Amino acid sequence: MPRSVAAHRQAVVELLTGATTSNGRLRLPLLEALGKALAADVHAPLSLPPFANSQMDGFAVRSADIPDDGAELWVAAPVPAGAEPAALKSGFAAPIMTGAMIPDGADAVVPIEKATPNAFPDATARDAVVDLPAVAPGTYVRNRGSDIEKGALALPAGTLLGPAQLGLLAALGLTAVDVREPLLVLLVTTGDEVVEPGEELSAGKIYDSNGTLLEASMRQAGLRVVRTGISDDDPASLLTELHRHTRNTDNPVDLVVTTGGVSKGAYEVVRQAMAGHPVDFLPVAMQPGGPQGLGTFNGVPFLGFPGNPVSCLVSFEMFLRPALSQVMGTPALRAVRTAILAEPLTSPEGKHQVRRGSVGADGMLRMEGGAGSHLVHALARANALVQIPVGVTELAAGAEVEVWML
Amino acid sequence: MPRSVAAHRQAVVELLTGATTSNGRLRLPLLEALGKALAADVHAPLSLPPFANSQMDGFAVRSADIPDDGAELWVAAPVPAGAEPAALKSGFAAPIMTGAMIPDGADAVVPIEKATPNAFPDATARDAVVDLPAVAPGTYVRNRGSDIEKGALALPAGTLLGPAQLGLLAALGLTAVDVREPLLVLLVTTGDEVVEPGEELSAGKIYDSNGTLLEASMRQAGLRVVRTGISDDDPASLLTELHRHTRNTDNPVDLVVTTGGVSKGAYEVVRQAMAGHPVDFLPVAMQPGGPQGLGTFNGVPFLGFPGNPVSCLVSFEMFLRPALSQVMGTPALRAVRTAILAEPLTSPEGKHQVRRGSVGADGMLRMEGGAGSHLVHALARANALVQIPVGVTELAAGAEVEVWML
Repeated sequence: MPRSVAAHRQAVVELLTGATTSNGRLRLPLLEALGKALAADVHAPLSLPPFANSQMDGFAVRSADIPDDGAELWVAAPVPAGAEPAALKSGFAAPIMTGAMIPDGADAVVPIEKATPNAFPDATARDAVVDLPAVAPGTYVRNRGSDIEKGALALPAGTLLGPAQLGLLAALGLTAVDVREPLLVLLVTTGDEVVEPGEELSAGKIYDSNGTLLEASMRQAGLRVVRTGISDDDPASLLTELHRHTRNTDNPVDLVVTTGGVSKGAYEVVRQAMAGHPVDFLPVAMQPGGPQGLGTFNGVPFLGFPGNPVSCLVSFEMFLRPALSQVMGTPALRAVRTAILAEPLTSPEGKHQVRRGSVGADGMLRMEGGAGSHLVHALARANALVQIPVGVTELAAGAEVEVWML
Repeated sequence: MPRSVAAHRQAVVELLTGATTSNGRLRLPLLEALGKALAADVHAPLSLPPFANSQMDGFAVRSADIPDDGAELWVAAPVPAGAEPAALKSGFAAPIMTGAMIPDGADAVVPIEKATPNAFPDATARDAVVDLPAVAPGTYVRNRGSDIEKGALALPAGTLLGPAQLGLLAALGLTAVDVREPLLVLLVTTGDEVVEPGEELSAGKIYDSNGTLLEASMRQAGLRVVRTGISDDDPASLLTELHRHTRNTDNPVDLVVTTGGVSKGAYEVVRQAMAGHPVDFLPVAMQPGGPQGLGTFNGVPFLGFPGNPVSCLVSFEMFLRPALSQVMGTPALRAVRTAILAEPLTSPEGKHQVRRGSVGADGMLRMEGGAGSHLVHALARANALVQIPVGVTELAAGAEVEVWML
């Protein structure tokens, strides 16, 4: 009985949970922390706003000075943004700019558009007056602490730090932040038929795209990556590489990911190399990407992805990426939406199929290539993974399907 | 009459179109090109797959050898992946692994599961035979060029290079790629009330969050950023900085973005500094982020964003980011979806309101903070910009709204 997609994802979450508890933290300048996950709660060292300030260009007033039918007030010295104004005396109105501090005594702002005259008097004018309508206390005043109070939780541990979160930390006066140290992944691509891009391609060989595809995916997800060269189909040479990297205490890897050699052929190098290590090779009820390896090697968490490029990408997106989001707080989960099938499709009985498609601006979903897991050109045209759950074997054009936006 | 959001976005597109035509290209190793835009069309230097290969572990056969009721065939030498096999003689079936080259003469693959016996004979066995069912020509054969033919367009100029696109280039044997040189932006935050994070905060002052928020947004969108220090509200010192950077021929900036000083208060430093330059300051029918500046300074495209952090982020997301996507090919457009309002909301007559909200796993949308453009803590909790178009002034709980996922 193959394992469900959800059950295998949960197994990856559990595998990573062990890997990450021992992981450290880094203190980084704010902008270097972009895309990383906060290591610990941040509490506000000051209130935001730090002082009551005006939401409008207008006149700061004592609201009690103005009866229901309005009043004429003396114009006080103007309050520019950034200045500490004198207290406002009764009977006066102070010209005030957006963001400027509300003077002591004032409790409301009348916008300049509602004043008569509706322009600020020249700064050199003496004894100027202004007619203002009545105003409720608090009008157009941004109170101290109305966004966040000093001491309150600003961002919880695990928060993914994007522009808005870093902007908040800057607004709080912070210049650096503790982030979770990214995991270091050892990425090994295998196969006698695979050669490095740029080398000569002899008959029967193909260029390795898995290494580039997965390293790019991992970097985008915030992981650090070390690569071995392509491992051939000799288990002994693969084992040598795995031992060398998993026993390197200077630069310990947190996770090993291999590609290829996990299915049921006659030459399955990863299965052979893992014999004697606590690693399961199992079918997951998913297409492509059904055969998966999961366990540990020398105590380091291990994932064995299948060898086709589309299977690698689907394995990463369906298992490792969401598990990282859950356990590490980074990367962000893929945006999930529904789209309308522009064409009918079929899916195998008993499998969760992951097809590649393009969602247009009109919300219509067109398939990119067939189900074949070697179709890397079709993959490169897709902007979405199409999720066809177990139990659905046919969908008509016009049907709604769930897609994950790449 | 304020300008519409769409009209202002189009004006930004036109402004950037001029800026980018003169921009160069960079040749980068594949992984360094992640997130950048392809500078020129890439045509396939080889076909994918480069040779006909097996989609299954099984037996390569001449389909004509097997009548409808099956046949017993001699077992030929096995074909591992990566090898160039001998031609298949009539009456023989060759054990073949997934991805291995189809031997000359063979035209179909019978999966191992359908063979009798359903396991490969030992490589040392002599005179082994296998019973196989009939098979249509082409079955489980991935034809040469079925993903892409040599010489065909692999990726068009402007393609955003993500993991799948880089994986395709690697599969084509390429090791480097020409990308569009990222724009260099001069980012200037202004305001007498604004001080750098880490400095002392005296009365009436606030920390600059716009610089961090916008630099992070710009970096995420693939731009390079240079910053001046915070400019005070003296137009002469702002002009000095702008002249210095826009006349620097060693490191020419492609775009100038300022924050603050664009509305109608008494001290609008950006408006004052731009007097005599071809820059318009105009209201856009949007809240927040209504006042906008657009033009050129010393021939360099210029955008003046408002001074509040939420207005800055909204200006970036509604105008600059989508214009970059359109003109430069990078970054990807924000994922757009609909969500269900968990609470009622109101929006001002005649304005496109952009609220901040959180879309939950259940598709329900909760507002983060009110409409106030100073609410940077609320912004940091949001995962979506909520789009409430002109003409909509009230929405009930349960209504569908468009959101852009951050």
